[in-house]
Amino acid sequence: MATIGMKELAKQLNLSTATISKALRDSYDISDETKHRVLKLAEKLNYIPNAHASSLRGKKSKTLAMVIPEVADSYFAQAINGVEAIAQAAGFHVLVYLTHEQYEKEKSILKELLNGRVDGVLISVTSQSEDVSHINELRRAGIPVVFFDRVFEDIGNGEVTTDDFNAAYLLTQHLISQHCKNIAFLSFSNSLSINTLRLNGYKSALLDHGLNLEKKNLLACFNQEDENKVLIKKHLLRKNRPDGIIASVEKLITPLYLACQETKLSIPKDIKVAAFSNLANAAILAPPITTVTQPAFEMGKAAASLLIKALKGTAMDTNEQKIILPSKLEIRQSSSRTFS
Amino acid sequence: MATIGMKELAKQLNLSTATISKALRDSYDISDETKHRVLKLAEKLNYIPNAHASSLRGKKSKTLAMVIPEVADSYFAQAINGVEAIAQAAGFHVLVYLTHEQYEKEKSILKELLNGRVDGVLISVTSQSEDVSHINELRRAGIPVVFFDRVFEDIGNGEVTTDDFNAAYLLTQHLISQHCKNIAFLSFSNSLSINTLRLNGYKSALLDHGLNLEKKNLLACFNQEDENKVLIKKHLLRKNRPDGIIASVEKLITPLYLACQETKLSIPKDIKVAAFSNLANAAILAPPITTVTQPAFEMGKAAASLLIKALKGTAMDTNEQKIILPSKLEIRQSSSRTFS
Repeated sequence: MATIGMKELAKQLNLSTATISKALRDSYDISDETKHRVLKLAEKLNYIPNAHASSLRGKKSKTLAMVIPEVADSYFAQAINGVEAIAQAAGFHVLVYLTHEQYEKEKSILKELLNGRVDGVLISVTSQSEDVSHINELRRAGIPVVFFDRVFEDIGNGEVTTDDFNAAYLLTQHLISQHCKNIAFLSFSNSLSINTLRLNGYKSALLDHGLNLEKKNLLACFNQEDENKVLIKKHLLRKNRPDGIIASVEKLITPLYLACQETKLSIPKDIKVAAFSNLANAAILAPPITTVTQPAFEMGKAAASLLIKALKGTAMDTNEQKIILPSKLEIRQSSSRTFS
Repeated sequence: MATIGMKELAKQLNLSTATISKALRDSYDISDETKHRVLKLAEKLNYIPNAHASSLRGKKSKTLAMVIPEVADSYFAQAINGVEAIAQAAGFHVLVYLTHEQYEKEKSILKELLNGRVDGVLISVTSQSEDVSHINELRRAGIPVVFFDRVFEDIGNGEVTTDDFNAAYLLTQHLISQHCKNIAFLSFSNSLSINTLRLNGYKSALLDHGLNLEKKNLLACFNQEDENKVLIKKHLLRKNRPDGIIASVEKLITPLYLACQETKLSIPKDIKVAAFSNLANAAILAPPITTVTQPAFEMGKAAASLLIKALKGTAMDTNEQKIILPSKLEIRQSSSRTFS
């Protein structure tokens, strides 16, 4: 599709390009009615300012926003450090905005960022995010957006992810090699690609090793830790209980371990356990837990680098801006088939 | 001391109060030379705008800054949630700024905030922070500052802390009651009041129970986890090794546990262990660790409330704005004198 410029918008609406520019940035100088007309046409014609034009925007804040669901997950805590390492070296400040997994909060934060407070945005979307109009709106205002970890594909100035399908496949295969035949998969039910990829990796590994995918082994978790413990316990007490469990999200580890304790199932003797997690204390849990560790710091660095490239106008096409970094399988005692 | 107003500064410098106000806010309209003259006199006369005057400042950003050392510590992750709970209800956005324990970074962030990007600041200072001029500068610019957890006393619009002396005293006393006679104390050597209070609580408990304070039991830790493991191992292998250890900071738990593992000391049989920590997975460590848990969420809420009061001009004197919330001693297996 041919790209549309600001001039074309101005011509069709019989307005100046300055007015168009201000309207797209939600400036106070422009009436709501005019803004509405401009945005409607921009959306209709799929107007996206090019990265170089964005970099020529007047005022520079020398600030990047990092919009993430939470900081209680050690993945995000480490990713922040990666972003700051690159940003600081390039003379940018970093502001951290938390969405608490609320899509409405994410929209309101991005709306707020339209005013030019930051030069660019790094985002890991909430598990509730479905519609992408708030992202497009930012890009139309000339503010580049780079996704990391939890991405919307093909609509940003770059994407940094890990090989989630592959990691889940290898983790499942590892449990199978430890003689697990009935492996449960814990996740939050949502439409995030990261979630789908991990689930599909698990399914593929089962299939390739001649194991059945049992619907009852797919446990959809809740936001409350206590509720998850109750849910997991129920499945540990059921007929044909799982002999292996994968927690696809770090915060499910504590309720999973407590559920095993309270049902008197010993890890790894009675049940083998593994998780996607960047926990600093994975090795001192009872027992130490086998993990897929994401390269969180490196992902933060890569995402910040892509964003700064976009700001400098040296960025390539979106298609060349997809970086996939490998995760690491760290085998520990929780999945061992030999145990004292 | 009588408080000095902007009028007095204007009079002495033969400038308008508008110029004074702009100079204090580091406005681009004012020459560096004039700013310098204004700031010098403001500092000399200890000019601090009153909270109500601050609340009347022109532009409102409806944004609070939260300036913290890091997010990898679960205390801060939980405190952020407390701040956001109050801020959101009052219609404020929260921006998180990380200092990474670097005093220079803290100064540069606060300098940046002088421009009115935020209405007020919540801060937990770095372990390197000593000089308070960057805090005074913010307050002179009419931006209220509330301290939490790691505070500079008596210079902010409020302070929220826990009873660190008392908590350390009770924790040490608990280890003594479990028959420990030679208790080591791990901390980062710095001049933070929180550190001094915890150390003094430990010392007092030893004294009150007739135990000697051994200099070699005070372990000054480093920023690198690996170095700390080596340091702790050295002390676990020394003659008259400790029979109990208190980690005064959460991030010392992993190197402490690993050091015990690698020196074949069993917790709690050979050595009893406890820590200041808000770890969500304290109960699933090998073994579960006895902790002093700070009311992080409540502290975040209290600090945000104080700041919003200051912004509304309904704040009281600094002396009435000191809130001390109780921590909780959670006894788990790591300090038990009976064990299987």
